Amino acid sequence: MVESFGKRLQERIRALGPLCVGVDPSRETLLGWERPDSVEGLEFFSLRVLEAVIDVAAVIKPQVAFFERFGSEGYRVLERLIADAHDAQVLVLGDAKRADIGSTNEGYAEAWLDERSPLCCDAVTVSPYLGFVALEPFLRLATESGRGVFVLSATSNSDDRVIQSARTDANESVEEMVLHTVADFNTRDDGLGSVGVVLGATRDKPHFNLPSLGGPYLVPGVGMQGATADNVARIFDRCPQGTVLASVSRAILLAGPDRAGLRDAAQRWRDDLSGALL
Amino acid sequence: MVESFGKRLQERIRALGPLCVGVDPSRETLLGWERPDSVEGLEFFSLRVLEAVIDVAAVIKPQVAFFERFGSEGYRVLERLIADAHDAQVLVLGDAKRADIGSTNEGYAEAWLDERSPLCCDAVTVSPYLGFVALEPFLRLATESGRGVFVLSATSNSDDRVIQSARTDANESVEEMVLHTVADFNTRDDGLGSVGVVLGATRDKPHFNLPSLGGPYLVPGVGMQGATADNVARIFDRCPQGTVLASVSRAILLAGPDRAGLRDAAQRWRDDLSGALL
Repeated sequence: MVESFGKRLQERIRALGPLCVGVDPSRETLLGWERPDSVEGLEFFSLRVLEAVIDVAAVIKPQVAFFERFGSEGYRVLERLIADAHDAQVLVLGDAKRADIGSTNEGYAEAWLDERSPLCCDAVTVSPYLGFVALEPFLRLATESGRGVFVLSATSNSDDRVIQSARTDANESVEEMVLHTVADFNTRDDGLGSVGVVLGATRDKPHFNLPSLGGPYLVPGVGMQGATADNVARIFDRCPQGTVLASVSRAILLAGPDRAGLRDAAQRWRDDLSGALL
Repeated sequence: MVESFGKRLQERIRALGPLCVGVDPSRETLLGWERPDSVEGLEFFSLRVLEAVIDVAAVIKPQVAFFERFGSEGYRVLERLIADAHDAQVLVLGDAKRADIGSTNEGYAEAWLDERSPLCCDAVTVSPYLGFVALEPFLRLATESGRGVFVLSATSNSDDRVIQSARTDANESVEEMVLHTVADFNTRDDGLGSVGVVLGATRDKPHFNLPSLGGPYLVPGVGMQGATADNVARIFDRCPQGTVLASVSRAILLAGPDRAGLRDAAQRWRDDLSGALL
């Protein structure tokens, strides 16, 4: 019986704290590091971030968009990053926000969650716009292989909430419907907690009883997007230990390319988050 | 002044008809062609489909999921397919359904719509779950460069419509909100019709006045998913000529790997659709 992603994540958070470091090689960040906006710059950046946070971050979260902009060469770098992180026992969450109809999601699930794929991560983010039935290939493969899926509920941007705050036929908001549906899946299933949600720390606390999700929370929006460790703690108080994973990207990456600077910044955020979530 | 995607698509549909051929190298399809489920099988399949439909299809639509499952090597094949299609003047629509927050969408827009990217297509599909404000990098780059964006409205799967049928604060369904927002963009903008929507032919006709979109419709669900050319015509009657692009995948691909068989199947669908949409 394979160990579930929920359990693996929980152990890792208990050992290292609740920090997820976003690996976001945007053009701005590369130029800020005085590196070229090229495949070479991308590779230097990715491996440097991994190396600097290897014993501080529970999880690294490569933002797939910033690799995809270099096409197959960018994906080659992403594959190297994933392999190196796995060698170092660091969990990798592919921030891909993929989704399509069910038959197509077989392909995406294979890309991100099948160990035969060079892009295989420990978990992947997915979008619910095409419905939960369509997400079945992700949920099935994750549960079978001890990997995880994070479904978007309320994202960290507050510039347009029209869809996430729309009301379903059951008269709940879309973002709360996602929470309920994931909680149902985690109960209905063998309770392994392979399925989590994305819930931005920049957003209001939902009416949903968060500790009852039965799976982990990925919490973006911390740092440059405005949320603090205290914001995270206020939303997720009473959630089981090791289920809240707070993601910080630019606020740490700005300390680079200096290795010690990156590590210190990550450690400060980790300690702040650990303290607030106690 | 660069020619808009809407105009380029319209010319191409007027010349060749309204058929978009989905390039969907799923494991099942490759095995059905008696080809290995490998990068070699993927490459053979992709180039064979392009070659067979080159003078029949207005557009080819590679389904990115089925390339991504082979990681960087799969993307290398996708890049070759895009380059070959462009050499043959075939429009390429990347069916990627990408979306993230705005700063991240800069990366995705660059990947799929910036001519310096090896993945650059004529148009790309995107998801509205994180809002239209976040989609701005796609809309801006498309408009500037004569490329297109298709925003998901009502997708072809009818297995879970919870989000797409949810009601916004303005008391319209999410799928109709998408239609209205795109129509507003096409008016507010310079009216070039660079922004279209995805509206499945397997779904009910929306209340929205379809001819007023000001941009093209990508219509999946035709063929194996159940919709016919007549279904397409019933939903999109009175839409301006050259704005409705019907996408057929498996119903054509099953005729492969024989080149003439593929071409005949594509031609039959093209003629059916042309006849129905007259």
